[in-house]
Amino acid sequence: MNAMDTKEKADLASLPIGIFDSGVGGLTVYRALHDRLPNERFVYLGDTARVPYGTKSLATVERYALENAQFLASFGIKLLVVACNTASALALPQVRAKIGLDVVGVIGPGGRKAVEIAGCETPRIGVIATEATVASNAYADRILDACDKAEILQKACPLFVPLAEEGWTDAPETFSIAKKYLAAFDDFKPDAIVLGCTHYPILKEVIQQTVGENVKLVDSGEATADEVVDLLRDKALDNRNIVSGSRRLCDDLDHFFVTDATERFGNVAERFLGMKPTKLEAVEVYGSDNMKG
Amino acid sequence: MNAMDTKEKADLASLPIGIFDSGVGGLTVYRALHDRLPNERFVYLGDTARVPYGTKSLATVERYALENAQFLASFGIKLLVVACNTASALALPQVRAKIGLDVVGVIGPGGRKAVEIAGCETPRIGVIATEATVASNAYADRILDACDKAEILQKACPLFVPLAEEGWTDAPETFSIAKKYLAAFDDFKPDAIVLGCTHYPILKEVIQQTVGENVKLVDSGEATADEVVDLLRDKALDNRNIVSGSRRLCDDLDHFFVTDATERFGNVAERFLGMKPTKLEAVEVYGSDNMKG
Repeated sequence: MNAMDTKEKADLASLPIGIFDSGVGGLTVYRALHDRLPNERFVYLGDTARVPYGTKSLATVERYALENAQFLASFGIKLLVVACNTASALALPQVRAKIGLDVVGVIGPGGRKAVEIAGCETPRIGVIATEATVASNAYADRILDACDKAEILQKACPLFVPLAEEGWTDAPETFSIAKKYLAAFDDFKPDAIVLGCTHYPILKEVIQQTVGENVKLVDSGEATADEVVDLLRDKALDNRNIVSGSRRLCDDLDHFFVTDATERFGNVAERFLGMKPTKLEAVEVYGSDNMKG
Repeated sequence: MNAMDTKEKADLASLPIGIFDSGVGGLTVYRALHDRLPNERFVYLGDTARVPYGTKSLATVERYALENAQFLASFGIKLLVVACNTASALALPQVRAKIGLDVVGVIGPGGRKAVEIAGCETPRIGVIATEATVASNAYADRILDACDKAEILQKACPLFVPLAEEGWTDAPETFSIAKKYLAAFDDFKPDAIVLGCTHYPILKEVIQQTVGENVKLVDSGEATADEVVDLLRDKALDNRNIVSGSRRLCDDLDHFFVTDATERFGNVAERFLGMKPTKLEAVEVYGSDNMKG
């Protein structure tokens, strides 16, 4: 980047930020980015034709992630955020190797934030995530990178995704299921728990009430958005052309793509963000990974 | 078939029966077929790389169904059972048009059985299924074909699939969620309810207790297996070469393919059938639909 002249850099800085997720969950990461970066435009891809990734294998998630990344790269973006925890856990190095752009995943920021927020020398950190993310140990690895004295306990909570998508954010059934899953942490007594799936912030209140106010919850999407803000500033990639005086979530400066079922995506987006995307299109990404060696 | 000579017919009859589903749920249909046809071999394809179909669009489900059907047809089968309710609801005519074989879906048999079992002139029939199956109205159409005086009420129950896969078949949370969904039928007072998703028979006891013993539950998989038995006999396609004295579910005469994550499939199969498939392989089906005009 040092060799880049000012004009090229200004052109790059004016491009949107790309975000992909396996589906609708990444909208919580989009919201966190949008809140912090009112002067940036976003291009979001939700791979709704192949959602969920959390029960799938490494090879399959890797292939899907590369196809999504390539689709967004070909669109023209300055930075790629892999909002999907499963894709971040299983395919971040592969995406980085193939795409000639800065790539930020959600696992590293979430893990570092958990260590920071736990605020002690031997932090006890819980991780709740999909089956695939838990099996990958990616959060445990990143947490230990940040603090090798950390104690970690992970628990997959598969029903949290459909509960969030149903919008049952304060249903007694959701509390009951949360209690059942989170009983795994009763003896462990964590200082902090990482919400290691983009859907889980939707159920944050239920989770907080279940584990008690003393346990700090870490929203990986928010931690990621904080790191993106720093990265844009450090690399002088923040957009200097003011895009609008009053941005709002899902306005027509942000472009949303899904691989299937736009109507359902719009409805769940409304449940998650309070509004539907203004610009929402269905696309094909199959075979977009034409960068394969 | 009339022009077919005896030798050709005997060869065809000795082939296995193909079954495909979006994932693991179709194992309930496999079990129903296996119970009734101990002299037949089965080839099962679970599209676990792209499961679930129930939240996806018509165009996507149609493409996936054609690829699965073509994969099984190329394997050499005498009959194709589309075990997935969503694929049956959205793509059966298209699969029939492309594959030169008898194709049986689960919607027609389930709808006809509901009318039969309701046993009255103006049957009141409930249908519980995925969002896509409900939206397609396929069950309502088939039920009205069988009895144009039927009254029908449909309800999507998205959480039943992950609850079944978690194995929470008698958890209080499952009863509570069932009560919430099935309250939709309180005023309707159905004579029968169709279990319009292959996962739902796993929760049959919860559903029966929730709606009361007076409501008859229709397992579409079992209704389909009954029709397959009749079809094989009527077309003289039943296998005359006795394959084994003592068959058991998942033995090495049946061949299982998945498009992803064999280990997870094996584990859920054990939960659903009490045992893991002996022969289980991962395959690619993408682009198998090379019959496209």
